[in-house]
Amino acid sequence: MTQTILLKNRPIGKPSVTDFEFVTDESEIAISDGELLLETTYVSVDPYLRGRMSDAKSYVPPFELNKPVHSGIIAKVLASKNENFETGDFVSGMLDWKTKQVATGEGLLKVAASKAPLSAYLGVLGMTGLTAYLGLTQIGKPKAGETLVVSGAAGAVGSVVGQIGKLLGLRVIGIAGSDEKIAMLTSKFGFDAGINYNSSTDIRADIAKAAPNGVDIYFDNVGGPISDAVLFNINKFARMIICGAISLYNNTTLPQSVSVQPFLVKNSALMQGFIVSNYADKFPEAIKQLSSWLTEGKLTYTETIVEGFENIPNAFIDLFDGKNKGKMIVKI
Amino acid sequence: MTQTILLKNRPIGKPSVTDFEFVTDESEIAISDGELLLETTYVSVDPYLRGRMSDAKSYVPPFELNKPVHSGIIAKVLASKNENFETGDFVSGMLDWKTKQVATGEGLLKVAASKAPLSAYLGVLGMTGLTAYLGLTQIGKPKAGETLVVSGAAGAVGSVVGQIGKLLGLRVIGIAGSDEKIAMLTSKFGFDAGINYNSSTDIRADIAKAAPNGVDIYFDNVGGPISDAVLFNINKFARMIICGAISLYNNTTLPQSVSVQPFLVKNSALMQGFIVSNYADKFPEAIKQLSSWLTEGKLTYTETIVEGFENIPNAFIDLFDGKNKGKMIVKI
Repeated sequence: MTQTILLKNRPIGKPSVTDFEFVTDESEIAISDGELLLETTYVSVDPYLRGRMSDAKSYVPPFELNKPVHSGIIAKVLASKNENFETGDFVSGMLDWKTKQVATGEGLLKVAASKAPLSAYLGVLGMTGLTAYLGLTQIGKPKAGETLVVSGAAGAVGSVVGQIGKLLGLRVIGIAGSDEKIAMLTSKFGFDAGINYNSSTDIRADIAKAAPNGVDIYFDNVGGPISDAVLFNINKFARMIICGAISLYNNTTLPQSVSVQPFLVKNSALMQGFIVSNYADKFPEAIKQLSSWLTEGKLTYTETIVEGFENIPNAFIDLFDGKNKGKMIVKI
Repeated sequence: MTQTILLKNRPIGKPSVTDFEFVTDESEIAISDGELLLETTYVSVDPYLRGRMSDAKSYVPPFELNKPVHSGIIAKVLASKNENFETGDFVSGMLDWKTKQVATGEGLLKVAASKAPLSAYLGVLGMTGLTAYLGLTQIGKPKAGETLVVSGAAGAVGSVVGQIGKLLGLRVIGIAGSDEKIAMLTSKFGFDAGINYNSSTDIRADIAKAAPNGVDIYFDNVGGPISDAVLFNINKFARMIICGAISLYNNTTLPQSVSVQPFLVKNSALMQGFIVSNYADKFPEAIKQLSSWLTEGKLTYTETIVEGFENIPNAFIDLFDGKNKGKMIVKI
């Protein structure tokens, strides 16, 4: 039996479970020469998938209606007629939200369960870690002693950005939405300070207090009022890595913010949209660095693991309420 | 007799003549060893001066109240006790709004009346030309065949940006505020198309029509709704040079615009504040290129020359109503 999750409707505002449809297929799956039969083990759910569910122009084409959603997945090879893979191997790749599926091996990467927990290949050793490392280094160009602010700091990317910031000698301030998350930032991830945007009455002033020398680098996962507040605190030549805008993704009207132009002119500052896939040539170097930090115990990570294929849509929706700590993963 | 213009009040909103005070001094001016006596010939009035009249944090310190305003000036040497300058020389530099003044020679550049009209050294061969050339090349990184949109296109910087864009093989679209200005962009400056933001009923659609392949580079002198409209038309990897935000300078409340973050993420696009003084190491190369284009007749420029020292404040204020075409200069 194979279960599949289709995109039924393009979400309006926050996605809902009724935007997805589960279908079941009882037929046996046969594979041809060169193919693999895969069984899904871990599914990554990520905020950027929201963009692909709309049909607006974006950096990746939109998902098709009534077709399977796909995302980063770790799968086990159940059968192989491809010489590069053996039964029992684990692979990572962009795969469909299906319990089982046939693949050609193209775009799949073998991952070693012996070297790191399998789910890490969706997170700190996967797109999450690459996004954090390459966004911070390629656009942020950090210099030891500078101050870094991270929004969505308790999220998958944010928590890795902050740790890398500390490894590179920065003062690191995280912004997140609960006292529990803030406590985790400073105790578990080594951030210098944290700001709870839900309890703060003046985020702009709280940033100023936490960053007495001003903000040199802003790793932005959220957009909206939090990012507006950061703008008032940037230094000359500040670099803002625009990695995501989760606070704006579900807007049904065009979001408005403080005009950034005067801040950019006054400070000769830079804002740049970051998509990890543009930096594919830097992946090997980045994975090497991340693996070495992980092995040395210098990098830790948090996962929120939800169990059960049927819970994939809810796990995805929960991202928009900040219910995850670190990487949100569904274990099948 | 020496006349001086002091900053009397920090303007609120649009500057007014009552923000300035004229004072007259009848005493003779004596110079010491190493000094020069200068007589002001041409005064540059520029939108960025508005920022210095406020006491908000900016990239240059604010003007002091009850002290002379200063800006780019061409002056004639009336007397010299400095071996580097002779009576009759013309110099350019940041000087006070005074009819006569004493200077040490520091920061002054000799300019040759024989090579170009003196006022050109405040414009196309001065900060204006350097801003256009270095902003476009250093941040815009143009590649032949790309599309450039310029706002404030009939202004001093904008009209030079567009011409350099054409020299570098770009499709160039200018946005300005009157049909007369638009006609000048295409007939005199060689722009491919122009959009009158005052008569357009849908700037976003008009940009899309004028830029069928999308916008790769945006040279932004204005900010506000025009820049919002450009955002909807940017291509992947677009570069936006934020050179000024004249539409926002006189706001007394914090201006709001369309949130830029989703556009930057979707398009891996860049916005960077540009201040010409950060690129001083590139000035010699840039002036060489600009002079050579000017000599070859490949670069033309427009000036609005207002006569009379007493008209400096009004000429400055008129910038905010777009009364100038090209560089606004006061001839003394």
